[in-house]
Formats: sequence, C-alpha cells, structure tokens
Amino acid sequence: MEFTHFNEEGRARMVNVGEKPDTERVAVARGFIEMKPETLKMIVANRAKKGDVLAVAQVAGIMAAKETSRIIPMCHNIFLTGIDIKFNINEENSTIGIEARVTTVGKTGVEMEALTAVSAACLTVYDMCKAVDRGMVIKDIHLVEKSGGKSGIFRSEKQDV
Amino acid sequence: MEFTHFNEEGRARMVNVGEKPDTERVAVARGFIEMKPETLKMIVANRAKKGDVLAVAQVAGIMAAKETSRIIPMCHNIFLTGIDIKFNINEENSTIGIEARVTTVGKTGVEMEALTAVSAACLTVYDMCKAVDRGMVIKDIHLVEKSGGKSGIFRSEKQDV
Amino acid sequence: MEFTHFNEEGRARMVNVGEKPDTERVAVARGFIEMKPETLKMIVANRAKKGDVLAVAQVAGIMAAKETSRIIPMCHNIFLTGIDIKFNINEENSTIGIEARVTTVGKTGVEMEALTAVSAACLTVYDMCKAVDRGMVIKDIHLVEKSGGKSGIFRSEKQDV
Amino acid sequence: MEFTHFNEEGRARMVNVGEKPDTERVAVARGFIEMKPETLKMIVANRAKKGDVLAVAQVAGIMAAKETSRIIPMCHNIFLTGIDIKFNINEENSTIGIEARVTTVGKTGVEMEALTAVSAACLTVYDMCKAVDRGMVIKDIHLVEKSGGKSGIFRSEKQDV
Amino acid sequence: MEFTHFNEEGRARMVNVGEKPDTERVAVARGFIEMKPETLKMIVANRAKKGDVLAVAQVAGIMAAKETSRIIPMCHNIFLTGIDIKFNINEENSTIGIEARVTTVGKTGVEMEALTAVSAACLTVYDMCKAVDRGMVIKDIHLVEKSGGKSGIFRSEKQDV
Amino acid sequence: MEFTHFNEEGRARMVNVGEKPDTERVAVARGFIEMKPETLKMIVANRAKKGDVLAVAQVAGIMAAKETSRIIPMCHNIFLTGIDIKFNINEENSTIGIEARVTTVGKTGVEMEALTAVSAACLTVYDMCKAVDRGMVIKDIHLVEKSGGKSGIFRSEKQDV
Repeated sequence: MEFTHFNEEGRARMVNVGEKPDTERVAVARGFIEMKPETLKMIVANRAKKGDVLAVAQVAGIMAAKETSRIIPMCHNIFLTGIDIKFNINEENSTIGIEARVTTVGKTGVEMEALTAVSAACLTVYDMCKAVDRGMVIKDIHLVEKSGGKSGIFRSEKQDV
Repeated sequence: MEFTHFNEEGRARMVNVGEKPDTERVAVARGFIEMKPETLKMIVANRAKKGDVLAVAQVAGIMAAKETSRIIPMCHNIFLTGIDIKFNINEENSTIGIEARVTTVGKTGVEMEALTAVSAACLTVYDMCKAVDRGMVIKDIHLVEKSGGKSGIFRSEKQDV
Repeated sequence: MEFTHFNEEGRARMVNVGEKPDTERVAVARGFIEMKPETLKMIVANRAKKGDVLAVAQVAGIMAAKETSRIIPMCHNIFLTGIDIKFNINEENSTIGIEARVTTVGKTGVEMEALTAVSAACLTVYDMCKAVDRGMVIKDIHLVEKSGGKSGIFRSEKQDV
Repeated sequence: MEFTHFNEEGRARMVNVGEKPDTERVAVARGFIEMKPETLKMIVANRAKKGDVLAVAQVAGIMAAKETSRIIPMCHNIFLTGIDIKFNINEENSTIGIEARVTTVGKTGVEMEALTAVSAACLTVYDMCKAVDRGMVIKDIHLVEKSGGKSGIFRSEKQDV
Repeated sequence: MEFTHFNEEGRARMVNVGEKPDTERVAVARGFIEMKPETLKMIVANRAKKGDVLAVAQVAGIMAAKETSRIIPMCHNIFLTGIDIKFNINEENSTIGIEARVTTVGKTGVEMEALTAVSAACLTVYDMCKAVDRGMVIKDIHLVEKSGGKSGIFRSEKQDV
Repeated sequence: MEFTHFNEEGRARMVNVGEKPDTERVAVARGFIEMKPETLKMIVANRAKKGDVLAVAQVAGIMAAKETSRIIPMCHNIFLTGIDIKFNINEENSTIGIEARVTTVGKTGVEMEALTAVSAACLTVYDMCKAVDRGMVIKDIHLVEKSGGKSGIFRSEKQDV
C-alpha cells in the first residue's frame, strides 16, 4: 500500500479522481469534548433558553464541512448533498458526543468533511465555554463509517462509551 | 461564572472586547493522532523524501490558525504576530503529537487559534494517510498554556504521555 | 407544510438533496436602493468615466453569488453555470433597481444565490456612495421568478414600480 | 462633495485611511423581512424548540459582519471588537425586524459591517423559510446610527414602524 | 471575435455555460521566478532538510487552484478532479520553473485554475525568500496547453528556455 | 543571511513579528501582460463602454490584496490602510502594465499584498480576454519599491520599458 497524495517526485498533489464514477457516498464521524461536570450542567441549563451553545456548534460544524477543501490542502472541493449533526450529552462521563453525517453524489468520499464538521463543532463548544472551563479536552475524533466508492464500506471497530 | 458569548436575550453574540488593552498574548495547544505502527513507519520513511506528510500538515495548521474566526462563529478576527507548529513522533504509542504556538498583540487571546491549528494539522495527517489507515484517531486536543490578558496565566494539569 | 431545514431533534441541518435529479434551474431576484436625487445624479455623471459605481457593484454581486453557501449557513455549495446582473436607474423614484439572474444545472435551486447577488450589489452601491449620503435605504429585495426542480415555476405577485 | 472611492484616473480604489487616528466606533443598522402571517407563526412556534430559525440567522449575521471586506470590494479588512444582533417580531405587520450593532477601535467606520450583518441575517431567514413562503420580502435595510471618527454622529431620520 | 464576459449592456457577467456538455478537460500552465544565484543555491541547499521552500509553494499552488473562482471575478466555481505541480530548477538561468497541471470533468475549462496555481506558487517562493532577495522577478506565466471542450486543443508556441 | 520562514526543526513557520513597532509601510509592485495587438485594441475599444476589462481587473486586484494571507501560506493577516491600482496601456509593446500601491500601518511590510494584487489583476485580464487570445503572457511581476520597517527603503534596479 502507498500514500496516494504524492507525485513521482515525492511531492504532495491532489489525487486525480477524474476517472472515478459518480456514486452516492456517505460518511459518519464522531468525537467528544470532555469538560467539568459544572460546565456540562451550564450547557444543559442554557439549552432551555432561545439560543444555546450547541445551536452555535451545529451551525459551525455544517459550515466547516462546506469549507473542508479550504482547510485540508489536498482535499477535493466537492458538492455536498446533505450534512446533519447530532449531539449526545453524557452526564456520567461529563462529555458531549458530536456526530456528523455527510453525503454526496460524486467521485470522491466525504470522510474528511465529516471529520472536519466534528472538529469545528467541538472547537466551537470549547470557544463558547472557555470563559468558565479552559481545561476541556477534545477526544477521539474518528471515522465511524463510510460507504460508496471503490474502497467499499468501512466500519470502525472503535467502541465508543 | 457565566458564559460570556450570550446577550441579554440569551442569544449568541461576539463579546465586546473594545475596552481591553492591547497586550502580548501567547497560547500553546497540543493534540495527538494515533495510527497503526505501519502507518507511522510510512510517514517516517516518507520524511526522508522531498515532500512529506508533516510538511503539508504544518502548512495546513498555519493557514487554519489564520482562518479561525471564519471557522469558529463567535471568534474575533485578529491579527496574529506568529505561528509555529512542532511534531513529536512517538513510536512507542504509535502517535504523532502536534503542538501549535500562536502569538498576538491585541485585545483578545489566541487559544482558539492554537487549538484550530492543531485540529487542522491532525485532520491533514488523517487525509494524507487515509488511503492506508482509515482507523486513525485524533486524540486529546487541549490548551497547554496561555498568557497575556486579564485572566492571567493558564497551565494545563493534563499529563501528556 | 414544514420547514425543511430542521432535523428530528429540532436542530438545523443542510437538507439532503442527493436523490433529486440534476435539472436546469433559473432564479431571478430584484431589489432597490433609494437615495437622494443628488446622489443618483452623481452616480449617473460618474458612469461616463472609466470606472463607475455600478461596475464595482456588478462585480460584487457576481462574486457574492458564488459565495452564497459561505454566507447562508444551510445553503448547498453548488456550481453556478451563469450569473448576470442588470441595473435600472429610476430618476423619478430616485432609486436604482438591481436584478440578478442566476442559472445552474443541479439538484437544488438558486434563489438564494440570486437574492445574495442583489444584496451584495445594493450594499456595494451604499459603500461607494456613503461619503455623500448615509441615509440610503435598501428596499424590497425579493424573488421575481424561479424555475426548474420539483416545486415548479414561481412568479412573484409583487408589482415593482 | 465627492465620492471618495475613485482615484485620479476615475477608477475604484480602497481609500487610504492611514492617517486617521484609532478611535472607538459604533454602527447600528436595521432591516426587516416581511412574510405571510402563517410563516411568522411557524417561526415563533419553532423558537420554543432547541434550534430555531433566528438562532441560525444570528450566527449568519455575526459571521457575515466579519466577512464584510470580502463581500464589499472597497471595504477595509478591519478588526471588529464586538457584534450583537437582535430580533423584533412584529405580528401586526407580519415582519421580523433585525438590528445589528457592531463596534471597533480603528481607523474606519463599521457601517458596512452592520448593514452586511443585517442583510445576511435577513437572507438566512428567507433561506430557512423559503420552502413554505417564497414571497417574503427583505425591506428597508438602513443605517440607524453611527458614531466615532471625523464625520461625527449620524442618526437616521427614518421612522421605523 | 468578441469578448464573451460582457452582457448586452456592456457590463461584465459570468458567461452561461449551462448548455455545454460535461467533458474531461486538462490545462497546463507554466511560469518562472528569476533570482540571484545565491538565492537559488540556498533554496537547493534547504531542500535537503525536512521542510523546504518548494514544499510550501506547492501546497500554496494547489490551494490557490481551488480558490480560483474567488480570486478571478468572472470564473465559474468548479469541481477540480486533480492538481499537480512540478518544479524545474535551472541553475544556468538562475530560475525556478513552475508547472501546474489541472484536470476537471465539467462544462468549462481549467486554464485559469492552472495559471492561478502557477502564480500563487511563484508568489510563495518570493515570500519565502524575500528576506534575502527582494529583486526576484516572476516571469512568463502562460498557458502551455489545454484540451477538452468545444474550442479544441491549444498548444502554446512559446519556446521556454 | 538566512531564510526567516523556517523554525529550528527546518520546518516552515509564520515569523514572529510581535516585537516590531507599528510603522507606516508602503509597497509598490508592477507587472505586465503581453497580448496580440488586436486584443489590446479590443480592450481599448471596450473601455469606452460602461463596463470594461480593466474595471474588473482592478476590483480583482484590490480584493486579492486583502486575501493575500489566505493565498500565501506564511503571510501575516494584516489590516491594509489603502490599495490603488493603475494601468498603463503600451500599444508599441502590445502590453498592459499594472501597478499596485498598498499601504498599512503595522508590524510587517506589504510587498506580498502589492505583488498579489498585480498577479490577480493580470490573471483577470487574461480571463476576460482568453476567448480571443489564449497566447497572452504575464511578465515581469516585481517589487518596484518598499518603505517603512527596519529593512529600510528598497528600490528595484529593474528598468521597465
């Protein structure tokens, strides 16, 4: 196996996908942000109000997915057909789980878009809460599953708590 | 303590920092990407060549730091005076540690810029290596230290391996 | 009828259009900027020269149409096949009418692109003239017509003066 | 009086503000989006839930204010110290009023940033609701007041209903 | 023959390509940056190390190709299937030749993307070396060849040294 | 002398300018685009009309100057106080000369902004005219002069025709 993002001179390139067929592709990524129990309580309490931390994180994640090819140098700029982000508040572990599901119909997969959406949403939660808790940690961002395209279906073996 | 990113209607806002003085500010953030030992070996072998995975990740991290206010909705758009990124290859844990140090002279801190640089660099390593290892995990992105500004010096208590 | 931009948790999402066919789509939007008669006279006089206010507004409108998915959070990032902007100087009402016509071949309509082009062109006229007239008002930005796609043809009932 | 955005050849330029002092500057802009009474009712009903139309519009407005110099060609790229957006639901007129207040400490005013924030927030409301009401109209975007800088205080004479 | 980028009012527009078929298209562009022999020696010496001037220039060129429609006002925003950049160090002329090859499957050509990639890579070499040589000159950026689309194959008659 | 854009590991960084004073800085850059005499005649003839090739090139150059830190990876994102672009039509050489003058008050120079403005304006002329002349060549983009900052005044020895 070889890295595909290098040309014959050993330099980075954006891989040519011109001969790949247009197929429907889906990628799901997940990550977590761990914080003090008090911080999580404040986020939950705040959700009852009109605007909330997670509403901003969600918009951030969706917008970042569309920006992926501008953040990740060798990513193709592609048309995304759908982006959805969900949150899982886990009071036991004092974490918020963030899951992004991205779809396209095209020549290349959308795992980077899903991972970027999760990263941006986690960073936004950090930003919105940092005045009360600078010790938050963004954890375990990984690809959960991916389908469509020649490489077939991928499913992570990682057990999320 | 309260979240500062909400206005009196409970809606998100970009906090007014107009009355803060311009001071020198530094933030250091760190994160890790864990992969199969073979993937790490390929990255190390590849470094000997002209272009390498980490060179691309580094440019991505630096450029993302400058994009922070466009990725994180409530972040101020600020002038950064310097950005530096370092890598720590740990063959024992099969991880690459990525550390970003960002400086500014201004009215607001740069922790989001440092965290965003680390996230983008981790995502770029994932992208460059995903053809050989889709199970990589981005781990433990956190603020290491921060100085400058009224809130004083912050140093993480997190023990990095 | 329901808002389509929300998921089952009630949170915003970018609607999945992956199953829609690629069809030719057109949208036309219109808006107005009202100003003092003297300001309008200056714009008209200036048009005789090499560069003019409306030439800059036109470039702004075309570029903003291409940026729509980065300005409007839930908009799809789509390939636009054509953008054209026209101006209608109305000395009687002391307004400039701005009309944008945007086309695509794709899975989703371009009404937001046409409305965004008109908005950016209006804002640019304001910017170029604000040193002489800060009281200008941007008025009645609306969709004039739209065709292509499952929802069929829309034609505004609004009577523009 | 003269347009300031043209050079001696009659071509557009970005005006040199290098000799202006850094002063605190504020601008407030306002606009409206008019819709069917049923659409307004749906927005109000939806607000009770976790995410809402106005939460997305608010993030869009704040992010667009930071993008102003990339949307309006002759605008300076400036550091904004604060951005706040408020909504006024008027069931009698079946409109939502959107007001943006932007502040900076710098060499040039922020009226374009406030007007751009209002425009983007209005466009986002349109986008979120267009599946149920394509006839919405964005109305009367104008500068309400502005202070700081040599040109002194501006207050609109426009009477908003 | 006529310029195609103007509408019937004589104003700039983004040409409508909606009726063009999707075909595979390739464009190759080339340019040079001329410098002092000592500067070129430093670049070559530096290449032996982990990061190098050309690695950064290459990432810049690839990212700029993806940004073309945001830099060149009347360019269509298109999906690129591949981007590759090569360098040719010519010690005799004390120049670095930069060649970009861009491909797409779409309705419009990619010559602007290839030319923009070369320009950005040249500018980046200048930026990375300007502390030692401000007199560098970017020379002879031109289209080398182009294929795909109705206008057929173009091959430059320019003789590169 | 040494390249400043590398850290002690030999990797690229954004140089720390935090200790530099804020001074007024100016940079002037120039470049040329050479074309068939018939193409130049068409551009000149077209200038008499409302919109023209050079009006679009000028807006492109000004907007690109503001984007420099997003195109050139190691450039600081800085506030520009002014940007002006001038054209010199030379029928004898069948070229258009493009000169950009950029100013700032800050900690770092603006030569990259001036060079980027010239490059984008040249590329835009190419784009607007490519339907009639694909053989145009962008030539001799160079820094003409620079002042402000510790490195003092630079004046190019290059003789432009």
